[in-house]
Amino acid sequence: MNIALPSPEFLHGLAKVAEQKTLQSYLNNQTIDISTKVKEGFRFDPVTNIDRDTEKLLRQAISQQYPEHSIMGEEFGRTQGDSLFEWVIDPIDGTRPFLCGLPVWGCLIGLLYDSKAVMGIMSQPYTGDRFWSDGQASWFAGRLGTVQIKTRQSVPLNQAILHTTSPESVDIYPKNNFGLLKKQVLMTRYGGECYAMAMLAAGHIDICVEYSLQPYDIAALIPIIEHAGGVVTTIEGHRPEQGGAIIASANAQLHQDVLQILNTEE
Amino acid sequence: MNIALPSPEFLHGLAKVAEQKTLQSYLNNQTIDISTKVKEGFRFDPVTNIDRDTEKLLRQAISQQYPEHSIMGEEFGRTQGDSLFEWVIDPIDGTRPFLCGLPVWGCLIGLLYDSKAVMGIMSQPYTGDRFWSDGQASWFAGRLGTVQIKTRQSVPLNQAILHTTSPESVDIYPKNNFGLLKKQVLMTRYGGECYAMAMLAAGHIDICVEYSLQPYDIAALIPIIEHAGGVVTTIEGHRPEQGGAIIASANAQLHQDVLQILNTEE
Repeated sequence: MNIALPSPEFLHGLAKVAEQKTLQSYLNNQTIDISTKVKEGFRFDPVTNIDRDTEKLLRQAISQQYPEHSIMGEEFGRTQGDSLFEWVIDPIDGTRPFLCGLPVWGCLIGLLYDSKAVMGIMSQPYTGDRFWSDGQASWFAGRLGTVQIKTRQSVPLNQAILHTTSPESVDIYPKNNFGLLKKQVLMTRYGGECYAMAMLAAGHIDICVEYSLQPYDIAALIPIIEHAGGVVTTIEGHRPEQGGAIIASANAQLHQDVLQILNTEE
Repeated sequence: MNIALPSPEFLHGLAKVAEQKTLQSYLNNQTIDISTKVKEGFRFDPVTNIDRDTEKLLRQAISQQYPEHSIMGEEFGRTQGDSLFEWVIDPIDGTRPFLCGLPVWGCLIGLLYDSKAVMGIMSQPYTGDRFWSDGQASWFAGRLGTVQIKTRQSVPLNQAILHTTSPESVDIYPKNNFGLLKKQVLMTRYGGECYAMAMLAAGHIDICVEYSLQPYDIAALIPIIEHAGGVVTTIEGHRPEQGGAIIASANAQLHQDVLQILNTEE
């Protein structure tokens, strides 16, 4: 695609804004003001004042640099701009692990062009990890320094590591044969949120299955996974930008196997 | 108890030995040599060369300082010494998240006196977090600096955060009403391993339920939880040092409620 993308520096600048605001509260959880949204299958869907305050700051920073871009965020909905670019942001993806003190939540900032995700960053402020794609390749900056990341291109299904956040989400999704998939992989783990998707891009995890993602839960992660060699689609095999039941795999063969199994009648 | 305990500095010295060895491999997962042990309910119970190498180093460091102490470790069993002190160590608790690249595993080093856990340390080398008890109080050193930690003393059951590592472990444990407990708490999360127990001590999580712990999975965590104000026992209400189905709660009232619910007929 021959479009001029924002610089990775701008992306990192946004991540820094989100990190500073969220980390402060994570480290001092007594200051968090929690309220709950209602969501199918969960009595408690927490949202905090930190989500809202951070999203405001990100919207300001984006509008200042790119007043014509659209912005979509978890807390304040969509602001339509006069451009094919649209930022899709979730200041705290994984509010539940954020409240639990488990460092697998992240700040997600993605950019769509003409409805397709083209660049994005996921930041875990406590570990100091950032995973991002500049639209060409995917990168990880953490305690390793900065390295280009790749998914595991040759892992077969019976050696694959499977991740999903919540067994309750699996149970309430109407048609899917997660049970059969579990039987065919090396091991299944729970609770990883966006950090598990980032670790798929980095070649540690091979399959991520999430049944009820919103666009802002996945937009930032799509380019990071795709430019690392992975595949991410809906459970029906469509583009994942609109969310829903989202499957990410380390390579195309694995993805084909996984979709076929999940769509097998129980 | 009027016994002379080793210094916290010695405990931190052991943690440092474990951190250096395990972090190196975590950052470079291609060098890990994985084999599998067989365990009820799981086809894949990974153990790595890093577990074994780290345990050897810890055993050396302990024997050098305290040749008379007994040592029990995950990989090399029990070495009987001529003392009531016994070290109980697990170099990588949470080999599965270790392989997945999720920073919720830990190095566990506990000390028993006359079969009762008296001090312990849990270290997460990637985040740089250490949680420990010196036998008097519990402490957390991380990005906050060093702070004394306390469990949430007044949280009622319907506001409590519940954690368990694996829904499969819940399913295979013969008698327990985890389903009823899930319905009565604020939220249930999965996948936290020893990091979730540490976050219970630190006042973020309120209930941890684990159905098949070995002594080395829990020994180090017992003093950290107890000296932070928490309660930890088997599901039958007995001392937890020998492992089994282990329940930890933020306070005594909550613990009583949780044991009663788990032991209610389904």
